Amino acid sequence: MDKVNIKQKFSLFNEYWSPKIVGELNGHYVKLVKFKGEFIWHKHENEDEMFYIISGKFKMELRDKVIELNEGEFFIVPKGVEHRPVANEEAEVMLFEPITTLNAGNVNNEFTKNDLQKI
Amino acid sequence: MDKVNIKQKFSLFNEYWSPKIVGELNGHYVKLVKFKGEFIWHKHENEDEMFYIISGKFKMELRDKVIELNEGEFFIVPKGVEHRPVANEEAEVMLFEPITTLNAGNVNNEFTKNDLQKI
Repeated sequence: MDKVNIKQKFSLFNEYWSPKIVGELNGHYVKLVKFKGEFIWHKHENEDEMFYIISGKFKMELRDKVIELNEGEFFIVPKGVEHRPVANEEAEVMLFEPITTLNAGNVNNEFTKNDLQKI
Repeated sequence: MDKVNIKQKFSLFNEYWSPKIVGELNGHYVKLVKFKGEFIWHKHENEDEMFYIISGKFKMELRDKVIELNEGEFFIVPKGVEHRPVANEEAEVMLFEPITTLNAGNVNNEFTKNDLQKI
C-alpha cells in the first residue's frame, strides 16, 4: 500500500512498446509504456483498453478514423476494435486494462510481450 | 468513441465530493472529482479504488497511516480498507473503480451520491 509517482516510474526504463506494471486493482493492471514509431494493427477480443497520455502525443489509428491524442487526454478502445498507435515523437502513456490483456492483442509476433515486469 | 480531455471536463463543474463519469470500460467507470475539505471515513467491501491526482494535493488518511498525494501520483485503496480523503486546498482527482462503487462506500449519508452524472 504505497503511492506511485508516475514520473519517477517512467524514469526507470527507456524501451519502447514494452509496458511495465505499476498497479493492480479489481483484476486490472495499471501499466506505463513509452511509445515511439509505429506499432502493429491488432485488437483485443474481450477487453476494452484505456490509454491516458502523460506526456507527448500520438495518433491512435482506427480502421475508419484517426484520433489525435495529446497530454491530459484519454481514449478507450472498445473490445474487438482494430487499432494501431503511431507516435512520431516519444509519448508516455498510462494504460488501464484487464490482467489478461496482451499488448499486441490477437497478433503474436516480435512486438508481443508475455512477461511484463513490475516496477 | 471520442477522446476525453481531462481539463476540459473539469471545467464543466465546481461541486466538491461529487464524482462525474467520463468513461467506462470493462465494468469500471473513470470518474472525475474535486476534493476540498474533509470527506468521511468509509470503506468499499468488494472494490479496490484508484485515486490519480491531476492537480493539487490531498492526504489519504488510513487508520494506521497517512499518505500524502501530489499531482502525478496515484494510490490504490484495497477493498475493505477504511479511508478518508482530506484536502486543505482544492484537488482534482481521477478515480478508477467498478461501476457498482458508491462514493461513500459502506456509509450512507449526506455525502452519498447515488445518481452520478455523465459529462
